[in-house]
Amino acid sequence: MKKIAVLGYGVVGSGVVELFYRNQKKIEKNTGTSLEVGYILDLRDFPGDPYADKVVHDIQVILDDPEVGYVAECMGGVNPAFDFVRRCLEAGKSVATSNKQLVAEKGDILLQIAKEHHVNFFFEASVGGAIPIIRPLHTCLAANDISAVAGILNGTTNFILEKMIHANMSFADALELAQKKGYAEKDPSADVDGGDACRKICILSSLVFGKHVYPDQVFTRGIRDVTLEDVKLACDFGGVVKLIGAVKRLEDGRILPTVMPMVVLNDSLLSHVNGVFNAVMVWGDGIDKTMFYGRGAGKLPTASAVLGDIIDEVKKKDTVLSQSWEPAAEGNDFVAPVSEFYAPRCYRTSPCGSGVFARVAEEVGVELINTRENGCMIGSCGQKKAEAFKQKLAAEGVAILSRIPVLAE
Amino acid sequence: MKKIAVLGYGVVGSGVVELFYRNQKKIEKNTGTSLEVGYILDLRDFPGDPYADKVVHDIQVILDDPEVGYVAECMGGVNPAFDFVRRCLEAGKSVATSNKQLVAEKGDILLQIAKEHHVNFFFEASVGGAIPIIRPLHTCLAANDISAVAGILNGTTNFILEKMIHANMSFADALELAQKKGYAEKDPSADVDGGDACRKICILSSLVFGKHVYPDQVFTRGIRDVTLEDVKLACDFGGVVKLIGAVKRLEDGRILPTVMPMVVLNDSLLSHVNGVFNAVMVWGDGIDKTMFYGRGAGKLPTASAVLGDIIDEVKKKDTVLSQSWEPAAEGNDFVAPVSEFYAPRCYRTSPCGSGVFARVAEEVGVELINTRENGCMIGSCGQKKAEAFKQKLAAEGVAILSRIPVLAE
Repeated sequence: MKKIAVLGYGVVGSGVVELFYRNQKKIEKNTGTSLEVGYILDLRDFPGDPYADKVVHDIQVILDDPEVGYVAECMGGVNPAFDFVRRCLEAGKSVATSNKQLVAEKGDILLQIAKEHHVNFFFEASVGGAIPIIRPLHTCLAANDISAVAGILNGTTNFILEKMIHANMSFADALELAQKKGYAEKDPSADVDGGDACRKICILSSLVFGKHVYPDQVFTRGIRDVTLEDVKLACDFGGVVKLIGAVKRLEDGRILPTVMPMVVLNDSLLSHVNGVFNAVMVWGDGIDKTMFYGRGAGKLPTASAVLGDIIDEVKKKDTVLSQSWEPAAEGNDFVAPVSEFYAPRCYRTSPCGSGVFARVAEEVGVELINTRENGCMIGSCGQKKAEAFKQKLAAEGVAILSRIPVLAE
Repeated sequence: MKKIAVLGYGVVGSGVVELFYRNQKKIEKNTGTSLEVGYILDLRDFPGDPYADKVVHDIQVILDDPEVGYVAECMGGVNPAFDFVRRCLEAGKSVATSNKQLVAEKGDILLQIAKEHHVNFFFEASVGGAIPIIRPLHTCLAANDISAVAGILNGTTNFILEKMIHANMSFADALELAQKKGYAEKDPSADVDGGDACRKICILSSLVFGKHVYPDQVFTRGIRDVTLEDVKLACDFGGVVKLIGAVKRLEDGRILPTVMPMVVLNDSLLSHVNGVFNAVMVWGDGIDKTMFYGRGAGKLPTASAVLGDIIDEVKKKDTVLSQSWEPAAEGNDFVAPVSEFYAPRCYRTSPCGSGVFARVAEEVGVELINTRENGCMIGSCGQKKAEAFKQKLAAEGVAILSRIPVLAE
């Protein structure tokens, strides 16, 4: 018999315990191992909870029990999670975490410690909640040269944008509704300013391209400034505004990770991902493209991913080296700056004849793809041309009200 | 150094060799093993081919070489593939196959042989081409009690239906276009009559529910009879007609696998899967639902899945028992007959007032969800009520021109 220890008995941690006991027989059959939740670590007590007798307050109890082989870290935050996870790994216990902040900031260090102690540090739940994405990337898709990843990595902002797109609600009203429904926190900044999606694209970038990418290396713009007029213009151009976390490999081998509102055209399946659901599209030389879709958060969906990791840890005799990456490159020249960003763009402007857009596009040397009285879409170009386009429009007396890049598939 | 042998040098087999050499370094890093394609088995010679020197005509050469640890079976058909795969497994070589017929008809036997010889028989490529679905089902989603799977499992029919839906082409014209583009065979029956999707739902059913399901146990209806009028009526009801392979667990534990045209409502992401792409939706008690999307066929997409399997085989020291199932249940009572099928339905009829539909629905005791002059949609019901509804409509002088179930999410 092997024991699982659950660190943190909040939403995710209690989901892990609940789902484990609901499907214990199936999990034991799958792993060929008799399993039990041995401990639940939390500062609080939970009198009346069916698993109250498993609650402990000292990580040392877990570290000292040789029967604990697997640890589910569901506390969130870097401290004390980092210290606890490190000590568990050093004690020869494999860890599965749902903590994206921990992985995005300390992933390389913890993966190295896991390797040294021949155990695993898994984090399927840290990106896309229930969606299998981490494991497919380094197993099923391992024969591919993956060139790009782009996804809807935050359910709260996707819910808000959908309400703006399909129910004509303002950002403020949609945010309030999301808060009422429990999708957004009272302080919604981690979601709406893009920080949550940023951590997830860091993790995906690190895994796919092999070097640790830190949140502060990623150009991150949230959805606070997106207006109903932007959403309407995108619709006129056959698309929807989504908060997209993306990473692309440039021709010289550097990578460019970004988080920003983008126009996703309706022929992309990503444009049809609604509500609090997440989806991740992956491009590779064998697969062309493949997409993974599901619930990006929530008690049982996140617990499903944590337990999936633990089940895999039980089956593994040593560290899975393909699910790892190196420390960040010296001098950080692995991550290109956003000034090298290249994409089609939508501009929303003051009322303007299409002839003006056409003339300016020709002068700057960009393709004019579509126009409306209050805006236009231009073809793929770099930041320099995009800036020139904007300035020449301004020189023509046209006010630039917003600029949103288009996700090019 | 370990050798891979490729059986069959057609589209998929040549894709495996091409993709392997394109990404050999990445694959060797992922597996931590030096790898080489040692042999290509084919009846033909390939003078001028860069790998012509690897071609052999006798399986015995491969069986006798102890350096061959992994075999990619890309021949298709049951004979001689079954014999060759069996002998490879018995010789201690793991096999990855793209051959859905082989898995659907002989999967349980080959999985048992693999287990006895401590090797693996993997088949990610047999369902959904490039899409990671087999491995996520028994690893990432292993903590779930999976209750249903439904998918677009055949790209050819999805292409044809899309042309009927969005380009107003008849079935015959859309099929001709699919043949011109190389998506459909000269004899298209395996695709358009549902046989291909049937094999895939057999494999998914066997894996998810643990007992072998044979193609002849699955109610299978293709898309030959789907008319433009059916497609138009589905559109009026807010949906699209798709060929859906599905399996559901009934309350008594039996399962009901089916392949048939179904109306998929527009709020399901499956309804937006177009062209030759495939997608598989999975429902479980932890995840709620999750979907996997990508290219269901083609040289490199299928090769990507075969090589993904081989990469995983290299990492495995013993049989992965979670990717297996038992032989079919005695007496076949594990698979319920289609008479127990339960779903909402669309009826296309001769012109008829909505009052008639309402009266008949009330008499039969089914919910009337939507009506048009030439048809209606009724809520979930069993075959008995559906039949009664049809007969009472007929008694009112209404001709039933077609009946298409609705995929209920």
